[in-house]
Amino acid sequence: MITVFGTVAFDAIQTPFGKVDRCLGGSATYFSVAASFFSRVQLVAVVGEDFTDDDASIFAGRNIDLDGLQRVAGEKSFFWSGEYGYDLNVAKTRDTQLNVFANFRPTLTATQRKAPVIFLANAEPDLQLEVLEQCESPRIAALDTMNLWIATARDALTRVFRRVDLVIINEAEVRQYTNEANLIKGARQILALGVKTLVIKRGEYGVLMMTNDAVFAAPAYPLEAVFDPTGAGDTFAGGFLGYLASCAEGNDADLRRAIIFGSTLASFTVEKFSLDRLREITIDDVYARYREFRALTHFEDFEV
Amino acid sequence: MITVFGTVAFDAIQTPFGKVDRCLGGSATYFSVAASFFSRVQLVAVVGEDFTDDDASIFAGRNIDLDGLQRVAGEKSFFWSGEYGYDLNVAKTRDTQLNVFANFRPTLTATQRKAPVIFLANAEPDLQLEVLEQCESPRIAALDTMNLWIATARDALTRVFRRVDLVIINEAEVRQYTNEANLIKGARQILALGVKTLVIKRGEYGVLMMTNDAVFAAPAYPLEAVFDPTGAGDTFAGGFLGYLASCAEGNDADLRRAIIFGSTLASFTVEKFSLDRLREITIDDVYARYREFRALTHFEDFEV
Repeated sequence: MITVFGTVAFDAIQTPFGKVDRCLGGSATYFSVAASFFSRVQLVAVVGEDFTDDDASIFAGRNIDLDGLQRVAGEKSFFWSGEYGYDLNVAKTRDTQLNVFANFRPTLTATQRKAPVIFLANAEPDLQLEVLEQCESPRIAALDTMNLWIATARDALTRVFRRVDLVIINEAEVRQYTNEANLIKGARQILALGVKTLVIKRGEYGVLMMTNDAVFAAPAYPLEAVFDPTGAGDTFAGGFLGYLASCAEGNDADLRRAIIFGSTLASFTVEKFSLDRLREITIDDVYARYREFRALTHFEDFEV
Repeated sequence: MITVFGTVAFDAIQTPFGKVDRCLGGSATYFSVAASFFSRVQLVAVVGEDFTDDDASIFAGRNIDLDGLQRVAGEKSFFWSGEYGYDLNVAKTRDTQLNVFANFRPTLTATQRKAPVIFLANAEPDLQLEVLEQCESPRIAALDTMNLWIATARDALTRVFRRVDLVIINEAEVRQYTNEANLIKGARQILALGVKTLVIKRGEYGVLMMTNDAVFAAPAYPLEAVFDPTGAGDTFAGGFLGYLASCAEGNDADLRRAIIFGSTLASFTVEKFSLDRLREITIDDVYARYREFRALTHFEDFEV
């Protein structure tokens, strides 16, 4: 079981391939749907009264517990508006409206506190810490963050880094936080804070996972049509931690498989706007693409 | 056996970690040394009288035939001067002096013409074609190129693309040549010219190899200290084609192993200036790092 704390939101998105003025989004939305392919998810988030039953249907029939999804009357849901150029690696934010999320200070239920895996999606570090401190010694505490907090709340972010087992972060953020041009050296600095596993997202180049003992590199799935990258990172985190939460051990082999499952789920997300593609796939689609990742990366030992 | 046509040159290099005013360089130099770990190399290049016996010692005791290395009295060798910032992915060229290479129009010997593998290092496309046309139906004809020729000699470059089996090119060049933002779509356009295998270099992100039937992605070796990236691409090409030339079949499994051997050799080159690191390693160092690439990329199938 996983508890996720993050946003359930609406997005306005423009890419070179299309435009939507209002679609379902939010870190916890993408995360929960992806993770629920493998594990039960406790969703901790807040929405306004603009969030309809139709919007909530994305969670229906999935292994997602909505006890922690608060709906606040008279308020609007978190809203993000962004656009992408042909280089789909970088989103340009046009507008962020916290709305109901601005005053959200969740109190976790007993079930949510006891989840063996907790994911703190991107949020102000002090708020992430407040949620983390309610958890009862999870097997894996993980977080995501963003450039804004590295720039404006660096000390608080460092305090949270010291408290979690696993950090999911993109490579520009590793360089920004450590002020180190070499990614591997930067990664070692973050591991030195006590983080056991560092997962570095590299967009179209895939993922690099580092522990003190091992490095694992996985490519992104080579897609001929990336339609909308929104939510790829949170989908990755969901597939990754969802699979990991389903493993008895969480050893190195499990972590590697989890990276591939995360990458697999993320590769579906970007094929359509919002959660449209994630909504329609089955676990068999996921398994089939996992095996394509094997074909994509596999090579034999040599004979002398 | 491989015939390589390219430059043997002197470089002046500045990186954030050091500076050399004159060191050995050149595409055919890096290529030959790397390829000679696996196959006999016929070197076709030209140098000026500034090229000393001491400079030539890099080829000594290796499986490299120097019959095709012309030394022209009264001339200077090809010279390149460049610098790198902390982002070591992009070299800034300060000066290029063709010198003796400007009038080099090689006539291949019978042995050079009959090599089953030919590599045309980066040069003016018409010149590459002139050399290729002297070859007697090689099993694999391969070339490298650069942004300059895409911009200034596009039609000639297309003519050479149509005549080779294998193109080694970096990802920015794929996008520049095809005017296509999506790398996979761009790659398909180049394959459609009749190229059987496209090897796309992505710097610190590794290599993507595409054929009409398969895609293979390999990461770069995660180095904590990249000292000087000069020659990494040509070293990669040498390790790749050198290993491939040693294979009886050159099937998909061979191509994948070749990519890893190329990546392995390139990872050594960048550890020191010039060919200083390549000069000191043994085939056992190469084999050991190949196995580290296995550990870096390997993951198991899942159990349902």
